[in-house]
Amino acid sequence: MSNTLPASRQAYYGEIAKHNLSPLWESLHALVPKSPRPQAVPAIWKYAQLRELVMESGRVISAAEAIRRVLILENPSLPGKASITSNLYAGLQLILPGEIAPSHRHTQSALRFIVEGNGAWTAVDGERTTMHPGDFIITPSWTWHDHGNPAIEAGGEPVVWLDGLDIPLLQQLDAGFAENFPEDIQPINRPEGDSFARYGYNMLPVRHEVKNGNSPIFNYPYEHSRQALDTLQRTGELDAFDGVKLRYVNPATGGYPMPTMATFMQLLPKGFKGKAYRSTESTVFSVVEGSGTAKIGEHTFAFAPRDVFVAPSWQPVRFETDEDAVLFSYSNRPVLAALDLLREERL
Amino acid sequence: MSNTLPASRQAYYGEIAKHNLSPLWESLHALVPKSPRPQAVPAIWKYAQLRELVMESGRVISAAEAIRRVLILENPSLPGKASITSNLYAGLQLILPGEIAPSHRHTQSALRFIVEGNGAWTAVDGERTTMHPGDFIITPSWTWHDHGNPAIEAGGEPVVWLDGLDIPLLQQLDAGFAENFPEDIQPINRPEGDSFARYGYNMLPVRHEVKNGNSPIFNYPYEHSRQALDTLQRTGELDAFDGVKLRYVNPATGGYPMPTMATFMQLLPKGFKGKAYRSTESTVFSVVEGSGTAKIGEHTFAFAPRDVFVAPSWQPVRFETDEDAVLFSYSNRPVLAALDLLREERL
Amino acid sequence: MSNTLPASRQAYYGEIAKHNLSPLWESLHALVPKSPRPQAVPAIWKYAQLRELVMESGRVISAAEAIRRVLILENPSLPGKASITSNLYAGLQLILPGEIAPSHRHTQSALRFIVEGNGAWTAVDGERTTMHPGDFIITPSWTWHDHGNPAIEAGGEPVVWLDGLDIPLLQQLDAGFAENFPEDIQPINRPEGDSFARYGYNMLPVRHEVKNGNSPIFNYPYEHSRQALDTLQRTGELDAFDGVKLRYVNPATGGYPMPTMATFMQLLPKGFKGKAYRSTESTVFSVVEGSGTAKIGEHTFAFAPRDVFVAPSWQPVRFETDEDAVLFSYSNRPVLAALDLLREERL
Amino acid sequence: MSNTLPASRQAYYGEIAKHNLSPLWESLHALVPKSPRPQAVPAIWKYAQLRELVMESGRVISAAEAIRRVLILENPSLPGKASITSNLYAGLQLILPGEIAPSHRHTQSALRFIVEGNGAWTAVDGERTTMHPGDFIITPSWTWHDHGNPAIEAGGEPVVWLDGLDIPLLQQLDAGFAENFPEDIQPINRPEGDSFARYGYNMLPVRHEVKNGNSPIFNYPYEHSRQALDTLQRTGELDAFDGVKLRYVNPATGGYPMPTMATFMQLLPKGFKGKAYRSTESTVFSVVEGSGTAKIGEHTFAFAPRDVFVAPSWQPVRFETDEDAVLFSYSNRPVLAALDLLREERL
Repeated sequence: MSNTLPASRQAYYGEIAKHNLSPLWESLHALVPKSPRPQAVPAIWKYAQLRELVMESGRVISAAEAIRRVLILENPSLPGKASITSNLYAGLQLILPGEIAPSHRHTQSALRFIVEGNGAWTAVDGERTTMHPGDFIITPSWTWHDHGNPAIEAGGEPVVWLDGLDIPLLQQLDAGFAENFPEDIQPINRPEGDSFARYGYNMLPVRHEVKNGNSPIFNYPYEHSRQALDTLQRTGELDAFDGVKLRYVNPATGGYPMPTMATFMQLLPKGFKGKAYRSTESTVFSVVEGSGTAKIGEHTFAFAPRDVFVAPSWQPVRFETDEDAVLFSYSNRPVLAALDLLREERL
Repeated sequence: MSNTLPASRQAYYGEIAKHNLSPLWESLHALVPKSPRPQAVPAIWKYAQLRELVMESGRVISAAEAIRRVLILENPSLPGKASITSNLYAGLQLILPGEIAPSHRHTQSALRFIVEGNGAWTAVDGERTTMHPGDFIITPSWTWHDHGNPAIEAGGEPVVWLDGLDIPLLQQLDAGFAENFPEDIQPINRPEGDSFARYGYNMLPVRHEVKNGNSPIFNYPYEHSRQALDTLQRTGELDAFDGVKLRYVNPATGGYPMPTMATFMQLLPKGFKGKAYRSTESTVFSVVEGSGTAKIGEHTFAFAPRDVFVAPSWQPVRFETDEDAVLFSYSNRPVLAALDLLREERL
Repeated sequence: MSNTLPASRQAYYGEIAKHNLSPLWESLHALVPKSPRPQAVPAIWKYAQLRELVMESGRVISAAEAIRRVLILENPSLPGKASITSNLYAGLQLILPGEIAPSHRHTQSALRFIVEGNGAWTAVDGERTTMHPGDFIITPSWTWHDHGNPAIEAGGEPVVWLDGLDIPLLQQLDAGFAENFPEDIQPINRPEGDSFARYGYNMLPVRHEVKNGNSPIFNYPYEHSRQALDTLQRTGELDAFDGVKLRYVNPATGGYPMPTMATFMQLLPKGFKGKAYRSTESTVFSVVEGSGTAKIGEHTFAFAPRDVFVAPSWQPVRFETDEDAVLFSYSNRPVLAALDLLREERL
Repeated sequence: MSNTLPASRQAYYGEIAKHNLSPLWESLHALVPKSPRPQAVPAIWKYAQLRELVMESGRVISAAEAIRRVLILENPSLPGKASITSNLYAGLQLILPGEIAPSHRHTQSALRFIVEGNGAWTAVDGERTTMHPGDFIITPSWTWHDHGNPAIEAGGEPVVWLDGLDIPLLQQLDAGFAENFPEDIQPINRPEGDSFARYGYNMLPVRHEVKNGNSPIFNYPYEHSRQALDTLQRTGELDAFDGVKLRYVNPATGGYPMPTMATFMQLLPKGFKGKAYRSTESTVFSVVEGSGTAKIGEHTFAFAPRDVFVAPSWQPVRFETDEDAVLFSYSNRPVLAALDLLREERL
């Protein structure tokens, strides 16, 4: 609010404030900006620097005590907000051999992208899936889910994954509900692979009815996604901005795997020098393979496997690579698309 | 964060904070609550108390200087946030005889609900509509719009309307763009009533294509809405929670008039003692006719014509009336519905 | 099949015919034509010539005995097929004062377009509507419906309407079901105008759920449709092919009033010389007001009020008028659109 | 029409017939039946009896001369109609080593289900796919397509597939267009497997836009479909009517592979004694593996691999098996579903 306000206006503003009123004309330009001014800034988390801290969390607290042993990746300009960017949450979750992260459900949608370690499992609504690096797994809104890891004797090893959630969005919408399952582990009533067999082969059960926007597949294995990218790389048709980029799909609708978050896997071939693009979506990237640089707004980040970086709304993004690189990413694109607020520019 | 943290944890938290990391387990319950904990509180603005302040704004600043001469209704627990509730903005706009509110457009969607005064106009994308109390008018996302009022000599009188916008939502989504029209008033290229003739009679132009979620009608006159309520009141079929409640519709899709806000008109007959309901939507009410009480959460508000009150997420709402009452309301229901986050309970 | 077949082929064809096989190569060009070859031909039914025959039907048989006293308009090249064109049925129904057409329902969708006479009623699922010339009324698939006419003493007069149904389509789809109501007249449980008040004012009941493709409005009064056309005529924006043409809409979806038939009302101003267009849809026209000529394929028809004419698939259509003319029409457009088979050309 | 008509009515009917009118009351019951009365009858084509005739067609005419060397399976009660049932066409196509079926396109949608032989190819819009028994391949409406078979020296062998088309439907809709490609073989511009890599792995190209109802995958390999059935068989969840039944899906929409035909693959385990169901859809079955009996209406058919049988609308269908059996099928379900005319009963 202007410092040089005439006294009469100041008196008026004081008076109306008593009635929970404020003058729009003093804040109009901030409320209705010419273009997006995200509070979040571009940022990178280098896995080489984090790995030891993640492993140390395993000594600081047990999974059982923590319920979810996760280090939240907080945007440097949003400290204490549990936000990697305006609508999105990101965290690195560690589960040690023999541990359980107990069963619960919440209206927040969650995705898991496996970063390191094999053999842990996620259970969703009665079916378990084994997790491997590069797998993309969903635990949709209001589905019971728990995680576990076999004991060392059974071959368990520390497993780390990236959690992506819409926590900040649901806070802003006042739409969060949560519930604990009466037991730590939910009962399993379908064999592993059952959902994928029903929905993963470009076929659906003949009586399947779409009830909500959640994908009925809950594990999209890296083996498949990588094979698709590999085939398309060989055909050589490369987008100048994105390389080869696919989005994960809900096979029952063709839509996004969950209503609030889109997910992508892209391959940038060795020597790629991408053009810059920008979008109103906010995107979190997790490096699966390879290295290169990401220029986001005024920042330039060198990335390597398992690093996480974030591109807030309307920041130009541009990639270059030293070797073949594979990036997983997630964004709030479905929210913007549903509300006619997605805007993109290829620069 | 707990005050009695062991020193080892505190040291660890300090260390990880340097890397923009924070421990989820200290905030999990706040981030993933059992049920919504809206920051906004139920509140009412009594028009009898505000009217003089609104009129005084006409002496404090001109419409031309203000661009939009509006008093923002700020939720008592969200001061300085331009929010009447989490996702919604509300303001009372005054336009005096002979004034113009200059033409601009923005990605924020806006609705106008006329509270007092006749004869001012709103222009949207080349067509003007004259405003009367009870009319519901939209200026959808990215449409050029300006307002004006005839000079006193031409019969102009002060006109006040309620502005409803999705400003806080677009701030959270980092999706705001705005632009000024090169002139104060946009050129008019269609006669008044043209849009309504094309789209308002349960018919559409044969080559109309739906391009976005915005209604092609931009004025829903009170005369029509009131007639519908009146007919239905006489049939006597009353909902125990809502009385007779209709939602405004985009006739080209059956959806909401705009993608981010739903609007409603309801009639509560004399002596109505409604049952309580709650919803994850946040709703702003404007009283058109009649009086009664609204019990919202722990609050009881006596309402009279032109009062504005707000019901945040998950607060039980219950109405009683002394005489026939008509309420206009708007909410963020389309956002919640699009994201599978709408939850309702009839108590 | 070719007359000059080698004997060996003839023997082969005889042999395979015993096994219910036939050689595609003898009929490929007929089965997969270069462009549509409709069996139906353009045709007109002049009301001046039909009226006496329609009235005579009232002496030939009673409504009660006939169940529906209708003269089917059969395409001259489809005799005995109850088809005015490939997918559509048209008939002129007469109901005399004091008569009832008893209540039944069927999966065939039906529309009524009132041609002559006032005061008869149609009841659909518990509500009656009074019929006036130019009104468009629907009795959707599987809805109970009956018709009646007040006695002469109560002001009843002979009423004639055009029935449009999808009978030939449902025959081809083997999807016809029918059932008689246990009584001649279904009970009435809602006052006249109730549906229109709920759905006709660009508002919907707040808890309305779309269950099928049928419009919840069942009477679209001419008074409204004519007013829309009149306003748009004055704005002067004329399509070179269609004049001013609106399609009737299901206000709950923006779609067609029923899933198998589209309906339209268009105004061709005095002196209109339209350009030719063609479409894969088949269209039946009923003249409401005015006169002119319709050139359809090789035919030229002079039309006057209450005449009915038909344009089969892919026949060029072109209109000229002597005076302001208003045409109602219905077509199988929704079927073609749903199956990606609609093709249009403006010539 | 009744034989005992009074002379006055007969005279009247004669008079109105001159005006292309006919009395509805004489045909109402036939036009609006109580339940479907399909003209088609249940029927089976035993491959053991047909195979030699199919192979003989290779000597009767060349693929080049025939354009498509196909024996049409005509319903016994619809001779000369090129219809296996009301809306559907079925044929057995033979292509010999070294032959080409030249490139063309048409608005009729076509599917190919490979019955016998390996190594022939189908090309669709610039990409070829190699055909193997059990593969389901589509050549959607208005896509260029040609077929070919390597020469004997290159390992070619006679290949037979079942063609399923919507020819009778498009005849009834007067919506058929066709065009020949200027050369026998269209140019190939994408490597085999390209479409599947883009769309087949539960991912889609990030900029894919849905333009029509056709699946972007055009080969659904039996290897995948069989694996899905095999997994689900082991989980043991069996539908009492259908066994394990999946429908093929358009991965970009969750809908059917083409707008006019649905396709299914089902496994009936050894000893299955299914319950009877009926539906308004008409279905053509092709036996992939195993044997059993199909009871359709009053008929009982023993089936073995490669047999084709048909179930017209509303005929009860019931399966029993001697050994594990796999059935492919296609039907007009999407047409009925789009028009709200699908009705099913589990008896």
